Amino acid sequence: METDLISIRDLRKDDIEEVLGLAAKYKSRSPASENIDVGEKVLGTLFFEPSTRTRLSFESAMLRLGGKTLGFGSVESSSIMKGERFSDTVRTFSHYCDLMVVRHPSEGSARLASELSAIPVINGGDGPNQHPTQALCDLFTIEMDKKRLDLKVALAGDLLYGRTVHSLAQALALFGSDILFISPSSLRFPSYLKEEIAQMGIRVEEDDDLKKAKDCDVLYMTRIQKERMSEKAYEKVKNCFVVRKEDFEDSDTLIMHPLPRVNEIEREMDDLPNARYFDQVRDSVPVRMALIDLILNGKLEVCEGETEKGKCPNQRCITNVESMDTKVEKGRCLYCEKPLD
Amino acid sequence: METDLISIRDLRKDDIEEVLGLAAKYKSRSPASENIDVGEKVLGTLFFEPSTRTRLSFESAMLRLGGKTLGFGSVESSSIMKGERFSDTVRTFSHYCDLMVVRHPSEGSARLASELSAIPVINGGDGPNQHPTQALCDLFTIEMDKKRLDLKVALAGDLLYGRTVHSLAQALALFGSDILFISPSSLRFPSYLKEEIAQMGIRVEEDDDLKKAKDCDVLYMTRIQKERMSEKAYEKVKNCFVVRKEDFEDSDTLIMHPLPRVNEIEREMDDLPNARYFDQVRDSVPVRMALIDLILNGKLEVCEGETEKGKCPNQRCITNVESMDTKVEKGRCLYCEKPLD
Amino acid sequence: METDLISIRDLRKDDIEEVLGLAAKYKSRSPASENIDVGEKVLGTLFFEPSTRTRLSFESAMLRLGGKTLGFGSVESSSIMKGERFSDTVRTFSHYCDLMVVRHPSEGSARLASELSAIPVINGGDGPNQHPTQALCDLFTIEMDKKRLDLKVALAGDLLYGRTVHSLAQALALFGSDILFISPSSLRFPSYLKEEIAQMGIRVEEDDDLKKAKDCDVLYMTRIQKERMSEKAYEKVKNCFVVRKEDFEDSDTLIMHPLPRVNEIEREMDDLPNARYFDQVRDSVPVRMALIDLILNGKLEVCEGETEKGKCPNQRCITNVESMDTKVEKGRCLYCEKPLD
Repeated sequence: METDLISIRDLRKDDIEEVLGLAAKYKSRSPASENIDVGEKVLGTLFFEPSTRTRLSFESAMLRLGGKTLGFGSVESSSIMKGERFSDTVRTFSHYCDLMVVRHPSEGSARLASELSAIPVINGGDGPNQHPTQALCDLFTIEMDKKRLDLKVALAGDLLYGRTVHSLAQALALFGSDILFISPSSLRFPSYLKEEIAQMGIRVEEDDDLKKAKDCDVLYMTRIQKERMSEKAYEKVKNCFVVRKEDFEDSDTLIMHPLPRVNEIEREMDDLPNARYFDQVRDSVPVRMALIDLILNGKLEVCEGETEKGKCPNQRCITNVESMDTKVEKGRCLYCEKPLD
Repeated sequence: METDLISIRDLRKDDIEEVLGLAAKYKSRSPASENIDVGEKVLGTLFFEPSTRTRLSFESAMLRLGGKTLGFGSVESSSIMKGERFSDTVRTFSHYCDLMVVRHPSEGSARLASELSAIPVINGGDGPNQHPTQALCDLFTIEMDKKRLDLKVALAGDLLYGRTVHSLAQALALFGSDILFISPSSLRFPSYLKEEIAQMGIRVEEDDDLKKAKDCDVLYMTRIQKERMSEKAYEKVKNCFVVRKEDFEDSDTLIMHPLPRVNEIEREMDDLPNARYFDQVRDSVPVRMALIDLILNGKLEVCEGETEKGKCPNQRCITNVESMDTKVEKGRCLYCEKPLD
Repeated sequence: METDLISIRDLRKDDIEEVLGLAAKYKSRSPASENIDVGEKVLGTLFFEPSTRTRLSFESAMLRLGGKTLGFGSVESSSIMKGERFSDTVRTFSHYCDLMVVRHPSEGSARLASELSAIPVINGGDGPNQHPTQALCDLFTIEMDKKRLDLKVALAGDLLYGRTVHSLAQALALFGSDILFISPSSLRFPSYLKEEIAQMGIRVEEDDDLKKAKDCDVLYMTRIQKERMSEKAYEKVKNCFVVRKEDFEDSDTLIMHPLPRVNEIEREMDDLPNARYFDQVRDSVPVRMALIDLILNGKLEVCEGETEKGKCPNQRCITNVESMDTKVEKGRCLYCEKPLD
């Protein structure tokens, strides 16, 4: 049976624990000293948007597993694929590899790709919706340090469009972490997601003061996207959303960031013992090795629910881009995961 | 002895049969289960024009043979190679690999590359001239289904600029297939090629009605290139050149297309049993594995004729781009393959 | 201990001899017949500027050593990395591979990269400063032919901005070669470098007549960069800086060029026995195999001196791009290698 990894929702707590456990094994050994084998398999990267970290860490993981890679970068893709539907491109691309990682600006694109291709698909980011493998990498970095995942975590910055924090919040809630959302009022965590998480029995708070994160075990910082706000609105918040050494140097609060950063973490933080953002990069390779290993060997089970036919009102949903019906699961669009009412 | 694959003209019928036979063997086994070896060889892709399918399927084929790949995409090439002559680039590139696939907008560019480099060269498309490996892949898909190649085949769409149909028509004629050319009058199959094919003893017809293809074993569809016609001319033909489910659903006519498609095959066709365009993609990998295997192992023989010196009048011919004499073989330019009188 | 290769200054004469000796071994054997192993290591190419030769020859060398590669091309990089500091990108990238080759427009960028990353770094060109591996490749081509390196060498063309000639002149001086600099007066070899070389006890001359190179063992030609001169100044020199067959066909002077060439070597020279520019390309692969082998196996020692803190006045120096202090070694900036007074 083929397994895809499209949304953090597809995983149960013990699936995630299995991934993190295997990642720990991969991390603790020298890649050169042992000969891991994924059987001459080929990982394909199908990226319609710029990426450095996600693409390269998947490639590095595949190469360190003894596998091979092919693909094309985002700049090429825009010119090469011009005029071809996403669905045709996916069907085509799936014949060149054994496992594919897809990044595309439309929400739900990865889910559609998994239905169209006979090989396993991993979501490398579908618009502002999900980025499940980043969330798994982040959980791993936290667990390596804190040895547990039922913590108090602050998620800060752009919580509206940041797909990484969407996936991460869902995963943390699964493990019982309380969450403090810190953002400007214009970039609040989506309310439908907040409700969903609150129903999982954890404590959820909102604030717009970054210093409140001092009481948390983890401060997960993201970039405030200047281009999505008025100049005036940006001027008002930009200085409230910088992690300063003076505030966090004597703290146990882990400082994390998915990178790239602009100015939201002072460079003076970089050498402090609680700065974790470059460790996150390093940890991303063993986590993705574990994912590839489990998926290619059919050892990762994902939940699948009952669905019925419908229309999705979200214009950024891939079902509208491709002019097709959606599937509705528990009142949500199966593709973009937005509630339908 | 080094072997190149530049034009479908270089191959005899039994060479093609050898390629198709080996491709069938590669197709029927699981790539993971056996360890094929091309001896740590490196395949280089030198692409001056956009490509997804040709480049990726060659790369996939090489990786599945246990080999390695390097190269650069078209977007980079335009900036990287700026100002350097094609001939210098080819000589340089040939030192980095053991086999190269070349795509370049000038007709005859691949032939020139094969003369300049000490390693085997495969033509991945030289302007509107030849695309021999695509033709071999298409033959394979047809033979897998029909078990023979002396059929009745309709080639439809842009028959003037479509290099794929040029190579394919020549190959089909070699196997005795009758050919029905269906195109708008402005995009007719080149008359010099049509005569050449007719002289091979097959029946050649022309038409502008797509429905005539219903009587054929295969309908090979290509994109009508809107940008090469007047708006008015395009409006007139665009609806005549769409393969519709209502016309072809109860038919044994295989529907093929080199992809990407725009609107010339209705999506409703995709799941019909006679739709073959995604099978073509899948089949392209074992065919290219067979080609790489035969070429790297020196098992593919190509015909070489006597030539004399001359000047080619075709301005798109690489000999004019590089300001050099051509070689004339049987009244044709050896490079762009156009008749000289 | 980790070894970097950042500047030709880091190498002693016997280090260079070790590289050239190992390169000769790699050159003399068939890559396919022996199974060299660098232990499943991954070479990463981090290129912020266009490159064909440097990137591809490193990739080819790594693949021929049994290793693997990843990276991204220059076009992508500009969009992907937008807004991220060089230092963050380097730290990130270093977690994906075991050895990295860096090309960046700022002088001293490779030195900074070597300090920030835990893996070995090779300088693939840092602005107009250094290109040490190209110099080693060039030395190898010369030694293969002349069997010695204490020669008389003419360096011609753009000697001001050409990083290749900077590194090469330093290396030749180390081996006792006398040097004749031939350039337009506006593109003279930098005086601080000329003095440094002259102090090594070799004879240094300057001229603006290319024919003076006839008495030399080697003429190393580079492109006159039209875009860096006035139209008038260019018109004046352009015809003086073309290597013509009539001048060099009966000569033992080796004609070399790092490529790409525009018009500074007539194509009629290409088949002469003293033309070496395509041999340089071929030789670059075994030299880079030797470098990778020595560096990954910790066998290349580089000199490290004492440094003190300071400010670098060179605005193209990476220390100014990154707003940081420099380190001063023997009156020079450790990064961009310019004298500080």
